Amino acid sequence: MKRRLLLVSNSTLHGSGYLDHCQQHISSFFGKDVKKVLFVPYALHDRDAYTKTARDKFRTLGYDVSSIHEASDPVDAVRTADGIFIGGGNTFRLLKSLYDNKVVTEIRRRVMEDGVPYMGSSAGTNVATVSINTTNDMPIVYPPSFAAIGLVPFNINPHYLDADPASRHMGVSPEHRDRFQEADKSTPCSREQRITQYHEESDTPSVLGLREGSMLLVEGNRATLLGTTKARLFTRGKPTVEYEPGSDLSFLLTDTH
Amino acid sequence: MKRRLLLVSNSTLHGSGYLDHCQQHISSFFGKDVKKVLFVPYALHDRDAYTKTARDKFRTLGYDVSSIHEASDPVDAVRTADGIFIGGGNTFRLLKSLYDNKVVTEIRRRVMEDGVPYMGSSAGTNVATVSINTTNDMPIVYPPSFAAIGLVPFNINPHYLDADPASRHMGVSPEHRDRFQEADKSTPCSREQRITQYHEESDTPSVLGLREGSMLLVEGNRATLLGTTKARLFTRGKPTVEYEPGSDLSFLLTDTH
Repeated sequence: MKRRLLLVSNSTLHGSGYLDHCQQHISSFFGKDVKKVLFVPYALHDRDAYTKTARDKFRTLGYDVSSIHEASDPVDAVRTADGIFIGGGNTFRLLKSLYDNKVVTEIRRRVMEDGVPYMGSSAGTNVATVSINTTNDMPIVYPPSFAAIGLVPFNINPHYLDADPASRHMGVSPEHRDRFQEADKSTPCSREQRITQYHEESDTPSVLGLREGSMLLVEGNRATLLGTTKARLFTRGKPTVEYEPGSDLSFLLTDTH
Repeated sequence: MKRRLLLVSNSTLHGSGYLDHCQQHISSFFGKDVKKVLFVPYALHDRDAYTKTARDKFRTLGYDVSSIHEASDPVDAVRTADGIFIGGGNTFRLLKSLYDNKVVTEIRRRVMEDGVPYMGSSAGTNVATVSINTTNDMPIVYPPSFAAIGLVPFNINPHYLDADPASRHMGVSPEHRDRFQEADKSTPCSREQRITQYHEESDTPSVLGLREGSMLLVEGNRATLLGTTKARLFTRGKPTVEYEPGSDLSFLLTDTH
């Protein structure tokens, strides 16, 4: 298993610029062998502007960027890529475009078999997992499936947010009063409650809640939590667990998760 | 056009009980001719508990409640209903169950042709519109379509929330910096930004943002905003407009919206 993944929760941390908070990890992830990174801007409507943003940032790190939307053949662009970066935006739009351009299988093959390094941010992290069932985005388009690229056997909730006990704008719904007595009672559906609702469905994989500022590095069968914030793991039928930055999360890569 | 709809943003307003804030509207909506309301609890996992909550509340208003999940034939239950109430929860789970139980078409027929009064709350309001593209919920299951019952020719965003300028937990993504200079800059994707992303897609209908505490009453070709909060209307390619409680929104029922 050659896969190498850098799955970032968010592109931009409050008070800093685009990808600033993870730029050292990006440099060591793509390293010196990769010269050009294939960028996938499908999650946003204005692909040209988005590509310029990514290109400008990656240039400061010493990498050229080619965008898949500029290629005459998207599948061929994936086939010849040295590294892949899928940026954030709307996860539904992103996954639908990946299917529309028929690159889902080819990205999986390149990453899993050829060891092409894959970086994702936000929606680009969502689509690297089993499915987009745990995205936070609005379903503005209908993809042919919620099944994603499947580079890891679990799901991720990027931008994971703890319940805000000060929030008062919403009442206590009966849907949640009984179930979540210990949780935030002031919002009808906190992030934790949403993920718990996901796990009410059968055969649902674990969900790693990646708070802003954190990212997951996967190298073969090793997974490590990087960044500055803890992550929260939700597994169906088990208590949730918090993990500190630096934690070894390789157990998530086994089939039972 | 016989349709009569009461589309409520949220079931529970902070500081009050289930459906308390709209109970007078419920009573005048179902009136004295309806004795028993057919409840649809599909949006929540525990349908029995949810039915008990709805039954207890409706009993205090003088209505019996039968639940569609207790019926041997869901389509027949719709065919013989005097009134319908679809409660909130997860919109994806709700719509999938409506399709799985083959009641989408029959509900539309009963409401549009027979004039059976339809009340929805939150997810139950979402599924009354053109599509669930503007739900706030997590896509925990994959419905066969995002197309909904289609009782009105526009979409609704329930629990509509204004951007919180005090929010600091998220950075300014490049995706939004240019586009939303006047909007909240501190969250990567405010509700307004999400709906604007929806309208980047072609052929998307207007979206009525129903803040908590507001509801829409539709009687034939008349639509009126009820409740205590303003609503915000998003139309593709046009400026957004605010409407006060009591506003006549009948123009939304014409085909161009």
